[in-house]
Amino acid sequence: MLQASLEHIARGLRDGTLSAAALMAEATARHAATEDRLNAYKCWDGARAARQAGAIDTLIATGADLGPMMGLPVSVKDLYGVPGLPVFAGTDTEFPKEWRRAGPLVRRLLDQLCVVTGKTHTVEFAFGGLGTNPHWGAPVNPWSAPGAPRAAGGSSSGAGVSLAQGSALAALGTDTAGSVRIPASFTGQTALKTTHGRWSGDGIVPLSPSMDTPGLLARTVADLAYLFAAVEGRARVAPRAPGGLRIGIVTNLVWDDIDPVIAETTRAAIARLERAGARLVEVELPHLDRVLDIFRRGGLGAPELRGFLEGHFPERIARLDPAVRVRVDQACEITAADYLQRRETLSESGRAAARAFEGIDLMVTPTVPISAPLLADLDDPETYRHSNMMALRNTAIVNLLGWCALTLPTGLDGNGIPTGLQIIAPPHEEERLLAAGLGAEAVLGAAPELLGPPPL
Amino acid sequence: MLQASLEHIARGLRDGTLSAAALMAEATARHAATEDRLNAYKCWDGARAARQAGAIDTLIATGADLGPMMGLPVSVKDLYGVPGLPVFAGTDTEFPKEWRRAGPLVRRLLDQLCVVTGKTHTVEFAFGGLGTNPHWGAPVNPWSAPGAPRAAGGSSSGAGVSLAQGSALAALGTDTAGSVRIPASFTGQTALKTTHGRWSGDGIVPLSPSMDTPGLLARTVADLAYLFAAVEGRARVAPRAPGGLRIGIVTNLVWDDIDPVIAETTRAAIARLERAGARLVEVELPHLDRVLDIFRRGGLGAPELRGFLEGHFPERIARLDPAVRVRVDQACEITAADYLQRRETLSESGRAAARAFEGIDLMVTPTVPISAPLLADLDDPETYRHSNMMALRNTAIVNLLGWCALTLPTGLDGNGIPTGLQIIAPPHEEERLLAAGLGAEAVLGAAPELLGPPPL
Repeated sequence: MLQASLEHIARGLRDGTLSAAALMAEATARHAATEDRLNAYKCWDGARAARQAGAIDTLIATGADLGPMMGLPVSVKDLYGVPGLPVFAGTDTEFPKEWRRAGPLVRRLLDQLCVVTGKTHTVEFAFGGLGTNPHWGAPVNPWSAPGAPRAAGGSSSGAGVSLAQGSALAALGTDTAGSVRIPASFTGQTALKTTHGRWSGDGIVPLSPSMDTPGLLARTVADLAYLFAAVEGRARVAPRAPGGLRIGIVTNLVWDDIDPVIAETTRAAIARLERAGARLVEVELPHLDRVLDIFRRGGLGAPELRGFLEGHFPERIARLDPAVRVRVDQACEITAADYLQRRETLSESGRAAARAFEGIDLMVTPTVPISAPLLADLDDPETYRHSNMMALRNTAIVNLLGWCALTLPTGLDGNGIPTGLQIIAPPHEEERLLAAGLGAEAVLGAAPELLGPPPL
Repeated sequence: MLQASLEHIARGLRDGTLSAAALMAEATARHAATEDRLNAYKCWDGARAARQAGAIDTLIATGADLGPMMGLPVSVKDLYGVPGLPVFAGTDTEFPKEWRRAGPLVRRLLDQLCVVTGKTHTVEFAFGGLGTNPHWGAPVNPWSAPGAPRAAGGSSSGAGVSLAQGSALAALGTDTAGSVRIPASFTGQTALKTTHGRWSGDGIVPLSPSMDTPGLLARTVADLAYLFAAVEGRARVAPRAPGGLRIGIVTNLVWDDIDPVIAETTRAAIARLERAGARLVEVELPHLDRVLDIFRRGGLGAPELRGFLEGHFPERIARLDPAVRVRVDQACEITAADYLQRRETLSESGRAAARAFEGIDLMVTPTVPISAPLLADLDDPETYRHSNMMALRNTAIVNLLGWCALTLPTGLDGNGIPTGLQIIAPPHEEERLLAAGLGAEAVLGAAPELLGPPPL
């Protein structure tokens, strides 16, 4: 029953053909069968979830309906406060209890009686795109060949795995430079990166408050649209078929040094959208070199994380994952004036780049230009640095320029790892984005049919 | 006729008993008689103003009414863009022409056909509380004894002088740490520092966008209330008599090292409010040492100005007023992380200090704890530094904690320089503040009656 859409499951819960308890039992079985190998969760909370699911079934039987998320199993990235569950944010030490407080997004889901399955792993302070974590081990990409574990993507590293695993039907992540889109792309899922400021970051351990956005991972765009409507308390968007859509294909930078098979699957997906009636336009984005240069020099994230750590947890700096710490240490050399100029350059670039949307509805790029690296290769700092920057490049652009985006699967690369198409919309155009995403999914095929099951 | 209230003058313009041309002619005569000695204006625009005034009289005679500011002479601090007038922002070189564009506040007044008399002097980049400027000379306090010129206060240094001089009936200033309140207090005028974010800073050369606020100077609180209503397009607030008002007297820090005569005039003013029925409560503000320590180490202003200069006018840094440059240079040592922690400490302190308003309506402090220094004494860098920090101390608190405030005169100090009472309200409570200010003015006496004319 875990294959059905959230909409279908929610209907089943209400008409008595499905039960939250059975759903949670199946999720628990999936978790138990694969968690040793996949390592999705920092903290699995199956027992409490099962008790809640049973109670929710009773409530539904009495006619209660607290909203679209009622009874649905959701995993939560271990950056969010969830009452009753510890917060580590990928660090080696639990955060003080006050960090368990739910912010508005978690509160919204809890108020609808969703069932939290547990806290999923994250890169330490979400500061990395591959999903590694020396304190707790990296989640393993479910699509890895036997004996050759590959990265699951990050920083919401456990989120995509929890969906592929089947232990949750939706996952909360965060996205500062690609952190919901990369793990979704690497694990054959979909993800929505919201416009900065649309949803509050309150109750979430910060990495870079100027760029941090709460985001959603789901198995299909249809589920993403369901979740988005549940969070915002509005009607679900209707699909918009590709016919007549004006889609801008970003031509500069995002194809540089791309894995040839990924380029091919992405171009094939775009060609299918064109055959379905989409009008393709080539778009050159201005200022990409300028904003990515800022990003490579630590962006706003390195100084903002350093400021947070110095102010709240100075003693943790020396204990950080070395891959994180090198960037936090480099932030010491960024002056306040430099930081402020970076902010201004990014705002200006965002304003200038916004003009690229004139005459088109959406833009597309490959979500991640490289395959998920072998985890063993990432022990080498230079390989890590290079792979991390490549993994984040195409998604970071969206954060740096202030837009929203989603990713959906397009196929498998030469390593058998899923590939994704990133669809990008202007700020606060999430409805337009989801409508087109639903239309694209109808043409390209939803992940389960398109990719088959992961070789768990 | 320049003694009448703005309300009275506006009525006179409409009923034909006054004319904008006559008003501007009188303003021009006042300017001509005293400007050599007082140096209020960077750029006097009397000829254009006279032509505009004549045309406005014609328009009024035809029944036109473009709003409450129609025909009223207003001076504008040389930080604001005003079409047709150069922008220097207190620097030695004119800014590029695009800086002449009017932002929303100036636009609002121009759309009502106010008459801009010219651009008033400012401390370079508004970065100082005394009013000095080595490039263009400091405006002179009209209350100085003959042969012993004293500071007019800053950074809106020409704004208060333009009112005392009678060349304008209202003045636009800006306030980042006291820059409308200090010159108003030193020259016997009133001023309103708005809540940060209430009015847009667009079209104004920035000092510290995190703290900069547009502000108003006027001869009386009644005129301030008139101007505030004109800017916001709403009805004027009604006076609130002191009877029943709960006024918090800030007890800590703001009385430290105060000039004894200033302390006396301030306490006498507070006692008169009490006799008029105000209930006085002693209030200790938390975190003042913490926020003032940040302020003394350059606050947010030094790094934000440095960032602006490095990004836009790097070649001007070496040519800055040495009193400004020393702080801009020190900003090089402020890291991005330190800057971000300062921001966080200030937000936290503002949230904590907000509780001090529980059970009271407003707070009061002496506006400036020292007399206007002799300009000759300020050539010594150490004297400048100390006097500047003392002049800014009581007003800066309001900016650092996120509040709004006004100042109104209370008497004269031992040097014959006006003294002021600062009234403080929580964020966005400008109406409450102005209502109480009107009530206080009715008790304490409006500046012209209270102080008599300046010894011009």
